[in-house]
Amino acid sequence: MIFTELLNGKTLKRPPVWIMRQAGRYLPEYKEVRKSADNFIEFCLTPEKACEVTLQPIRRYGFDASIIFSDILLIPHAMGREVRFIPGTGPVLEKLSDISQLRAPAHEDFLNYLKPVSQAVELTRSKLPEKTALIGFSGAPWTLMTYMLEGGSSRDFNLSRQWLWSEPAQSEKLLQILCDYIVSFLSLQAKAGANVLMLFDSWAGAVPAARRKTVIIDMHNQIISDLRAQNIHLPIISFPKGLSEGLIEYCEQVDIQALGLDHYTDRHWAARSLRKDIALQGNLDPLALVTGGDQMKAEIDDILECFSNRRHIFNLGHGIVPQTPPEHVSELLALLRQ
Amino acid sequence: MIFTELLNGKTLKRPPVWIMRQAGRYLPEYKEVRKSADNFIEFCLTPEKACEVTLQPIRRYGFDASIIFSDILLIPHAMGREVRFIPGTGPVLEKLSDISQLRAPAHEDFLNYLKPVSQAVELTRSKLPEKTALIGFSGAPWTLMTYMLEGGSSRDFNLSRQWLWSEPAQSEKLLQILCDYIVSFLSLQAKAGANVLMLFDSWAGAVPAARRKTVIIDMHNQIISDLRAQNIHLPIISFPKGLSEGLIEYCEQVDIQALGLDHYTDRHWAARSLRKDIALQGNLDPLALVTGGDQMKAEIDDILECFSNRRHIFNLGHGIVPQTPPEHVSELLALLRQ
Repeated sequence: MIFTELLNGKTLKRPPVWIMRQAGRYLPEYKEVRKSADNFIEFCLTPEKACEVTLQPIRRYGFDASIIFSDILLIPHAMGREVRFIPGTGPVLEKLSDISQLRAPAHEDFLNYLKPVSQAVELTRSKLPEKTALIGFSGAPWTLMTYMLEGGSSRDFNLSRQWLWSEPAQSEKLLQILCDYIVSFLSLQAKAGANVLMLFDSWAGAVPAARRKTVIIDMHNQIISDLRAQNIHLPIISFPKGLSEGLIEYCEQVDIQALGLDHYTDRHWAARSLRKDIALQGNLDPLALVTGGDQMKAEIDDILECFSNRRHIFNLGHGIVPQTPPEHVSELLALLRQ
Repeated sequence: MIFTELLNGKTLKRPPVWIMRQAGRYLPEYKEVRKSADNFIEFCLTPEKACEVTLQPIRRYGFDASIIFSDILLIPHAMGREVRFIPGTGPVLEKLSDISQLRAPAHEDFLNYLKPVSQAVELTRSKLPEKTALIGFSGAPWTLMTYMLEGGSSRDFNLSRQWLWSEPAQSEKLLQILCDYIVSFLSLQAKAGANVLMLFDSWAGAVPAARRKTVIIDMHNQIISDLRAQNIHLPIISFPKGLSEGLIEYCEQVDIQALGLDHYTDRHWAARSLRKDIALQGNLDPLALVTGGDQMKAEIDDILECFSNRRHIFNLGHGIVPQTPPEHVSELLALLRQ
């Protein structure tokens, strides 16, 4: 499994490759299976369907890693919060405005509710080629907190940032509660057979710099040390999106095996500045993949050249977008494997 | 005028202070004047009204600088694009999808249309206390381009980023056209009596890192060198918001006198890493100002301490928000001036 070998410290001649949201709406075979379920959460919680769409991009492209099909909002849902996915709008959550509104379930009930994810991981691992790694994942506390407070995605995260300033005690408590559920959820996936764990802090960039230490770094450290304390020693990829210059401090203080870079981060700066024993993952702009051709090729060449001196996992800087022509992914792979 | 003295290289004991959007909806006296005009563009283009609201925060708080009341979208409007401001929604522009749709006016007509801004600058300068600097400003090419392509604000700037990849020639041409109008507009304000010019590249952070050089750095350099070639030697404050780690390269390559920092940028990193002869402006989170009290005080103390070794202009990291209690601004000023 070259993917985990790289994560465990081995230098490879060519970077392993996978793509965030590689199971998704740009694939006709995904859309076909998706049609068979009324709602998105039910779809995620049906092990056979989650397994099938996880395998599709592996069959089509032979990526070096697969990521279990699921969603970061399963955690708030399993915590008893209303979560709906509205086509064209995105997720809509029941808004949390005070922590007393939270009726957080016992961890046993929480895990019971998420058992289908465990089954999907187990089933997928049994069907994947042996050489293909399976990634389990979770949203990070801050990112989940933003969805719960904003009631969905946000442009400015004003409600969440306002909470950090004016409700420091409630913020800390909510982050702590989320932290514990996240550890349970990642542990569940590890026990079901995931080979790698990934933490998505998609809105890390929306934390005012003065609060990064407590909201991002301390929380990630706690998740990782709790997992290690449970004897889970899988490699961890972290994706604190938008941290930019804050990545230096992040990498110095958090014990991860790989770091995801978004396409807004200068890769040459990152290759130079970030702790050398961490593998870097990224960072082609998903829209360069939509464009394809020479523009994409020039970027891929730059990425390969940039990371030639350190361990690297090829990926996009964010999830693949629905309008991507599937043949551009083949083009990308041909360029990487030539 | 301590504000321009600082910009021209003088070290001051206490930082001068102003606030982005200091003339705005958090002030009852602003809302009163605003009521007297039907639409926002007409409001901006009425010299007496623009002057009056520019002066209001100076009367109330005695800031060290004022910024002429206007809007970055006056440029697309003066270029013949439809621009409407819809309360609660924000700006809505006629979407540009191909450069051939652009009927860009002669520079003489463009300047004629914007003459009320020139008159507002002149009037305001004549009424301001002598010690108070007057800032003229413009949006930068990329930021204006995003509004024109997206038809308004955006969360992901996908249309604009897609253009950079798949329409490189059209992108370059549009940026170039905007560049020239921006120079004309800044020059107009300089000639009318502005003491300082400011360039807002509010969505600089949405440029994929691989395109920063051509889309941000080269464009800003061209604007500045064109102004200098016209014998306009006013100090320039640039605010390429969201550039984060890219600010190092930006500051090395662009000849500005001050740089605005948003509240997502680690100020301690910036104070350490950015070219020392540039004054830094910022960077209190506007929501910390909404919160006030101890949380705000701790941040202000940190900002003052952080920049004690380099030239600094106190400001927020982004515009003041409408829900800010005006008395928190007094609190802020009392802390800065004690």
